[in-house]
Amino acid sequence: MGKFTKKIINLPKRLLVEEPLSLYSGLRGMFRHSSKRVGLPPGQAVYTGTQTDIPFNISVFAYTDHELTEHHNISTDELFTLSESHKFLWVNIEGIHHVDKVKEVCDAYAIHPLTMEDILSVEQRPQIDDNEDYLYVAVKMLQFDPKFRKTVSEQVSLVLRKNMVITFQERKGDTFDGVRTRLRSGKGKIRKEGSDYLLYALVDTVVDHYFLVLEKFGDELEEIEERIMLKGQKRDFTMLYELKREMIHVRRAVWPLREVVSKLERDDIKFIRKSTRVYIRDVYDHTIQAIDSVETYRDFISSLGDLYQSVISNKLNEVMKTLTIISAIFIPLTFIAGVYGINFENVPEFGWEYGYAYFWGLIIIVGGITGLIFKIKKWV
Amino acid sequence: MGKFTKKIINLPKRLLVEEPLSLYSGLRGMFRHSSKRVGLPPGQAVYTGTQTDIPFNISVFAYTDHELTEHHNISTDELFTLSESHKFLWVNIEGIHHVDKVKEVCDAYAIHPLTMEDILSVEQRPQIDDNEDYLYVAVKMLQFDPKFRKTVSEQVSLVLRKNMVITFQERKGDTFDGVRTRLRSGKGKIRKEGSDYLLYALVDTVVDHYFLVLEKFGDELEEIEERIMLKGQKRDFTMLYELKREMIHVRRAVWPLREVVSKLERDDIKFIRKSTRVYIRDVYDHTIQAIDSVETYRDFISSLGDLYQSVISNKLNEVMKTLTIISAIFIPLTFIAGVYGINFENVPEFGWEYGYAYFWGLIIIVGGITGLIFKIKKWV
Amino acid sequence: MGKFTKKIINLPKRLLVEEPLSLYSGLRGMFRHSSKRVGLPPGQAVYTGTQTDIPFNISVFAYTDHELTEHHNISTDELFTLSESHKFLWVNIEGIHHVDKVKEVCDAYAIHPLTMEDILSVEQRPQIDDNEDYLYVAVKMLQFDPKFRKTVSEQVSLVLRKNMVITFQERKGDTFDGVRTRLRSGKGKIRKEGSDYLLYALVDTVVDHYFLVLEKFGDELEEIEERIMLKGQKRDFTMLYELKREMIHVRRAVWPLREVVSKLERDDIKFIRKSTRVYIRDVYDHTIQAIDSVETYRDFISSLGDLYQSVISNKLNEVMKTLTIISAIFIPLTFIAGVYGINFENVPEFGWEYGYAYFWGLIIIVGGITGLIFKIKKWV
Amino acid sequence: MGKFTKKIINLPKRLLVEEPLSLYSGLRGMFRHSSKRVGLPPGQAVYTGTQTDIPFNISVFAYTDHELTEHHNISTDELFTLSESHKFLWVNIEGIHHVDKVKEVCDAYAIHPLTMEDILSVEQRPQIDDNEDYLYVAVKMLQFDPKFRKTVSEQVSLVLRKNMVITFQERKGDTFDGVRTRLRSGKGKIRKEGSDYLLYALVDTVVDHYFLVLEKFGDELEEIEERIMLKGQKRDFTMLYELKREMIHVRRAVWPLREVVSKLERDDIKFIRKSTRVYIRDVYDHTIQAIDSVETYRDFISSLGDLYQSVISNKLNEVMKTLTIISAIFIPLTFIAGVYGINFENVPEFGWEYGYAYFWGLIIIVGGITGLIFKIKKWV
Amino acid sequence: MGKFTKKIINLPKRLLVEEPLSLYSGLRGMFRHSSKRVGLPPGQAVYTGTQTDIPFNISVFAYTDHELTEHHNISTDELFTLSESHKFLWVNIEGIHHVDKVKEVCDAYAIHPLTMEDILSVEQRPQIDDNEDYLYVAVKMLQFDPKFRKTVSEQVSLVLRKNMVITFQERKGDTFDGVRTRLRSGKGKIRKEGSDYLLYALVDTVVDHYFLVLEKFGDELEEIEERIMLKGQKRDFTMLYELKREMIHVRRAVWPLREVVSKLERDDIKFIRKSTRVYIRDVYDHTIQAIDSVETYRDFISSLGDLYQSVISNKLNEVMKTLTIISAIFIPLTFIAGVYGINFENVPEFGWEYGYAYFWGLIIIVGGITGLIFKIKKWV
Repeated sequence: MGKFTKKIINLPKRLLVEEPLSLYSGLRGMFRHSSKRVGLPPGQAVYTGTQTDIPFNISVFAYTDHELTEHHNISTDELFTLSESHKFLWVNIEGIHHVDKVKEVCDAYAIHPLTMEDILSVEQRPQIDDNEDYLYVAVKMLQFDPKFRKTVSEQVSLVLRKNMVITFQERKGDTFDGVRTRLRSGKGKIRKEGSDYLLYALVDTVVDHYFLVLEKFGDELEEIEERIMLKGQKRDFTMLYELKREMIHVRRAVWPLREVVSKLERDDIKFIRKSTRVYIRDVYDHTIQAIDSVETYRDFISSLGDLYQSVISNKLNEVMKTLTIISAIFIPLTFIAGVYGINFENVPEFGWEYGYAYFWGLIIIVGGITGLIFKIKKWV
Repeated sequence: MGKFTKKIINLPKRLLVEEPLSLYSGLRGMFRHSSKRVGLPPGQAVYTGTQTDIPFNISVFAYTDHELTEHHNISTDELFTLSESHKFLWVNIEGIHHVDKVKEVCDAYAIHPLTMEDILSVEQRPQIDDNEDYLYVAVKMLQFDPKFRKTVSEQVSLVLRKNMVITFQERKGDTFDGVRTRLRSGKGKIRKEGSDYLLYALVDTVVDHYFLVLEKFGDELEEIEERIMLKGQKRDFTMLYELKREMIHVRRAVWPLREVVSKLERDDIKFIRKSTRVYIRDVYDHTIQAIDSVETYRDFISSLGDLYQSVISNKLNEVMKTLTIISAIFIPLTFIAGVYGINFENVPEFGWEYGYAYFWGLIIIVGGITGLIFKIKKWV
Repeated sequence: MGKFTKKIINLPKRLLVEEPLSLYSGLRGMFRHSSKRVGLPPGQAVYTGTQTDIPFNISVFAYTDHELTEHHNISTDELFTLSESHKFLWVNIEGIHHVDKVKEVCDAYAIHPLTMEDILSVEQRPQIDDNEDYLYVAVKMLQFDPKFRKTVSEQVSLVLRKNMVITFQERKGDTFDGVRTRLRSGKGKIRKEGSDYLLYALVDTVVDHYFLVLEKFGDELEEIEERIMLKGQKRDFTMLYELKREMIHVRRAVWPLREVVSKLERDDIKFIRKSTRVYIRDVYDHTIQAIDSVETYRDFISSLGDLYQSVISNKLNEVMKTLTIISAIFIPLTFIAGVYGINFENVPEFGWEYGYAYFWGLIIIVGGITGLIFKIKKWV
Repeated sequence: MGKFTKKIINLPKRLLVEEPLSLYSGLRGMFRHSSKRVGLPPGQAVYTGTQTDIPFNISVFAYTDHELTEHHNISTDELFTLSESHKFLWVNIEGIHHVDKVKEVCDAYAIHPLTMEDILSVEQRPQIDDNEDYLYVAVKMLQFDPKFRKTVSEQVSLVLRKNMVITFQERKGDTFDGVRTRLRSGKGKIRKEGSDYLLYALVDTVVDHYFLVLEKFGDELEEIEERIMLKGQKRDFTMLYELKREMIHVRRAVWPLREVVSKLERDDIKFIRKSTRVYIRDVYDHTIQAIDSVETYRDFISSLGDLYQSVISNKLNEVMKTLTIISAIFIPLTFIAGVYGINFENVPEFGWEYGYAYFWGLIIIVGGITGLIFKIKKWV
Repeated sequence: MGKFTKKIINLPKRLLVEEPLSLYSGLRGMFRHSSKRVGLPPGQAVYTGTQTDIPFNISVFAYTDHELTEHHNISTDELFTLSESHKFLWVNIEGIHHVDKVKEVCDAYAIHPLTMEDILSVEQRPQIDDNEDYLYVAVKMLQFDPKFRKTVSEQVSLVLRKNMVITFQERKGDTFDGVRTRLRSGKGKIRKEGSDYLLYALVDTVVDHYFLVLEKFGDELEEIEERIMLKGQKRDFTMLYELKREMIHVRRAVWPLREVVSKLERDDIKFIRKSTRVYIRDVYDHTIQAIDSVETYRDFISSLGDLYQSVISNKLNEVMKTLTIISAIFIPLTFIAGVYGINFENVPEFGWEYGYAYFWGLIIIVGGITGLIFKIKKWV
């Protein structure tokens, strides 16, 4: 029973619990997209994710430099009314599995069916699409779930139109709360600058969250390092493996982002003003730093794997040395004892007066010599 | 006997069955092409595949925006009659091992002998060839055969001429059924747009099928991961190896496709109209995603291989520890028993009243000390 | 003795025979070139190969579209006479270790001393040199020697002048027989098109032969794969290693060829007409395919190496498990037997009526418990 | 107890001491930046490092070709007064955790808030930023701490304005003492040339220090190599691992520097005069050499890891061979002794006159044969 | 003692001798440069090598097409007199640790202090520097020292001025003897062509020597391969490791040379005439070939490492199999013997008439069955 429990502990945590959210879709989920879409014409509204119990919610921040109004949980019709009347709008849409409503919004703002398909296909790579009428950016929001010790990934789609940013999220999240606070306080440039600056602020928030996840990974790696150096148990390698696996997913989110942000910074994107580009450059630097860190971690994980292997090899050597020393000492002695257990007649030693003492002397001498040899060979 | 059976089970399934289709031609087949062709002048009609029992079949979808006629199993002469009279034609040819008929079709539509050679050489890399009179695209169709758990690969050649797409397949397949349905229903753009849009739809279907295959791989990988974490048997590594092997083949199909689709998207291909290019861009994104997934899987397979090795090392350590503990405990005890089996005269212990109790006391003390040492060293 | 024979069998075949041809010069030979040439001024006529017993032989195919004359084993003077009088000439020279005659030919056709040095330095990388008066191409001809199971490599130098191709071979070979047959038959384009087409046909033949070699490798790999999966003997890894080694050599021949053929295809080479370039493009595609296959094989060999390691690890585990099980069962039993072999007086069990039965009972119970533990732990 | 002590010794030194300086921030520290900054608007003055007990210190070297005045520990107001009155100024600021004062300085010299953020975010990658009014360069200063055998990394920010260089350091350091000496002595070009030359001299000093660190690594590697070749203990691999880890950090500092210096050398940076560029080119060469060395070390560390593994494998083989030889010799002998310890009646050997001699003869013959077999098999 | 001697033999030769020349400076030496130079201003004359007992020696070859005068061991003043009066000069300077004299020469020929620094910093990467007045090339001369089986590396600096080549060597060497002989004989182009041709000839000689070193490596690799295949001893891997290490150093010399020679060949270097460029192209090809060989060797060394590991694994398996077979056969037999050594009363077998025969029968049957099982499992 004890054994069984131990095995369970060795299992990755991920396998032990009913996951309440299947945002982290694992390897299977990487292609949910396509299996749902195979054979369909392009531009169809099909949600490929798993978040089907999130209520649809539109919230709008309408603001100018000196005023801000918030609208929560409004209908699409209300939304369209608002659009016309304000200087800058940030429309945040949660629960994109309500495909009809998403379609309604997309149609209202002249978003191309292929873009809408991308918004709903939540297992895509980060991408950027510079259309005539709007700029489409898809990024991956990563969060570390401390309960199950794994990374949760969510696709966030951002559409930048003239004086308007629309964000599409799968579920209700507090990720952008920092931006909301800055909007409400009206400090800094966020309300003074245009919608492109808001886009920058949102993407920047996403990239900043990567560092939170990476920091957690750093903590775990340091912990694993110490554990391996002290003991090197099977469990440590399993943890290392899981980290490697999570890292593969983070990598998939971060690498393509570099290209996306790099394109954002280019001259030829008309929706980004020159004054905003210096901030985009800042996000770019952060992205490079995130990539750099991911690669450093990969290097480090691989080194730790080697260290673990060497620890295990050394342990095996230790175990085998112990066995060999014990065997080498006692097997000859047992042989000697066996010799004097023979039942031959006329064994002269049996009749000696100090035969028993002679026997123990022999045992001690032979045992001592064997021990000495190991001492000389530095085995003990 | 039981042992023998077990070994058979450990064999890859691929080795156990007579494969009914040799589409998956393995390593040997990768060069069937050349060994059949060595010494021949270029442009010869030689089929290099293995599908020689498929009946030759021409089916034609002739359509305009508001009407569609289907012609199945027609002769080449009928085909040539049809060609003149319709707006858009999709000619699907199955059973290309009938080289004479393929030659007839190629000659009729002014397809260059080198292109015809490529159509018949079914072990080629995906490629694109932009000729004066037509555009030639060769792609690999992949399908997962659940019965033998392996990937089946088939070359599909597409020729795009003015208002006409000709597809060449080795065998009868239902791959393009989705496109057929869309053609028949007349919904969407497929009948309104020209032949370049049809080409896009067909290539898109091929890429979509990659995701189905990759999804199966994802399932298998997750299963193998769980198995290795729980037990780590020889069989798991064999499965992993086979997956790796399949992945090598998928990689060979997907990577060159990127270049092919990227060329399709370029400005200078006159057979692709600008309005279709936005869809090609979509296929390109999917191809990148497929490549990304293949590379992620490779990473993952390699990590799993390391995990397996560490599981095996740990198991060896466990086994050796068990052996060492048992040996270390019982070898000294056996020695003691051996000592008191000697036949010397005058062994004082033999005469003691509680000699036997003393003997057992000794055994228990020595055994206890050894056990204690292992306890302290945390071996048990 | 038996052991010795077995060891011999495990040796690579290469080490067991006196190689009749030292064309395959191994690692040592890779630098014969330089050691023979160090300190010499450039442009010296020094043959660096090992084929010194091949008779010098000039054979000429002189042809126009409607006629062909063959001249075999002619002198250099006869050759120079022929050169003037025909439309197209193919001069094939075998036995280039006759450096004086090679020099004579080179001088007669205004071939630069540095080019001549390259022709004679047979351990060079494939290269192309576009001179004022001629085009120089050096490629590696590979052949699989089934007797010794190894790849034989020979440098073939091609010089393309106006209406003339000169080929230099180290030894007498039948490699170009396919081209000769096509020349004689007069079918196809080979006699109609110019000397650049002949150059294409010859290079194409060389590339085609790579596929024959790769096909053999494919066969061997499949065989090794099956062997490793079934048993995983030391010998299998040695075979794999040898294949890897051969592959290193094939790689050295194929990779630089890509660059050579790619340059051939370029616009600025005046000796290649535009009409021929479409065929060169075909050779280029084949070269890419060969490279692709070499890399696939390397991947595959590396995977097989991992598989082998895992098979060996599993075998070690099996062996150790067997040892541990046997030891764990019998060592305690032997201890019990040892206990009742003691010669103490007053051992109560000795006097019991069913003492012997009790003894066996004890043995069976202890043995049974040990066996049961292994059963529970799923070791047996 | 002895065991416990030994384990402690095997631990990396890093884990045993309370680090007095946390400059080397490890993996955890790599993202301190972001966790402190998440949700903040850009351009905020937040120090992300750990050096909070360093007093703020401004020291100024004001110099022309023929005179030099030094000002230490002056206030910001004094600084601003100085700025106007001299030809060239080098302002060195220590203790950047005093963010208010840093802000004051930045504002006074029109340094953009984003640049100030970079100055204070001490975990950034080396970077260069060419602004309208100044040139910003951030590099990593590395030093080897002999006490804890690890690398200490500090960010140094350099701002080059017209006739002025401002350097920002986290803590008080003697790194630039060489430059100070050259300034004071007035020899060489350092006072004659402008501020761009001073910038060069400072960056050059930073790069030179890399070689000191790398030299230490070289010493350690040579030591580890000798140790592994002689014995190959667990400890050696731990040392190797730590070196690898340090190397990962050095790599992160050196690689991006190449790009930084390369940009410095370009034509379009207006703050660098052409005459200074030849010196920058020199720094560039040194940077390349440092990168080259880092990569060489990585190669070398990886080779040493392989060597270690092979040493360990060989040791295991030795141990197992010893065990096998002892077991193989004594187990049969013990069996023979056991045979003659049986208590059957009528064992004829027991009655033989020379039974005991026969017994020993048997033992010697069997033992000798076993020994001989090992001799023949070259195991001993 | 015997053991101790064996260990010494296993040590790399490098560790056993007092090296008479420390040209091969190992890892430690890679940064001697910087540690000697840290804090110094640029352009200082500091020799960073170890050859401090070589006498300073200037030798001059002054030549035109039809005459040649040699001057050995002349003073710097004599040198400057010579410079004016001849058509072409080759000045060879040995013993550059005499920094004052090197400085004198550099000043006389207007060589920039930074170039002089490079001449004296002998641990630099190969480089080329195209100045206004001269062309500076630094290359690594490699030689294989057969006595200590290691590569000796020396920096050779070449300065090409109008009609003049100056070479700087650390020590007296015979490397350029081939060039001297060609100069003396006056054959070939060497005296007819200008100083750029001489530069070519010298660099060509350096590259040619690489092949001699690589040839030695090839010999060693083939020897190691045969040894590993036959036996696979610890020593073989140590040899392999040392070769790998040497290869790392060769790589550092060869790779940057490619860039150097490639730049030499470019149009914009005014000191190289167009007619010489065709020869430089030849050196370039040789450099590529050297790089190709180095990479091939690396591949090969890595494959040999894998082979070695597999040989060692197989040996361990063999050893363990032997142990297991012996144990599995004799442990049960010893148990049986132990059983009949018990001292119970009433053991029926003891009284049987053929008890002893029954005992041996039992032994033979049990031993035979065990042997048979191993036979069936193909362990023996």
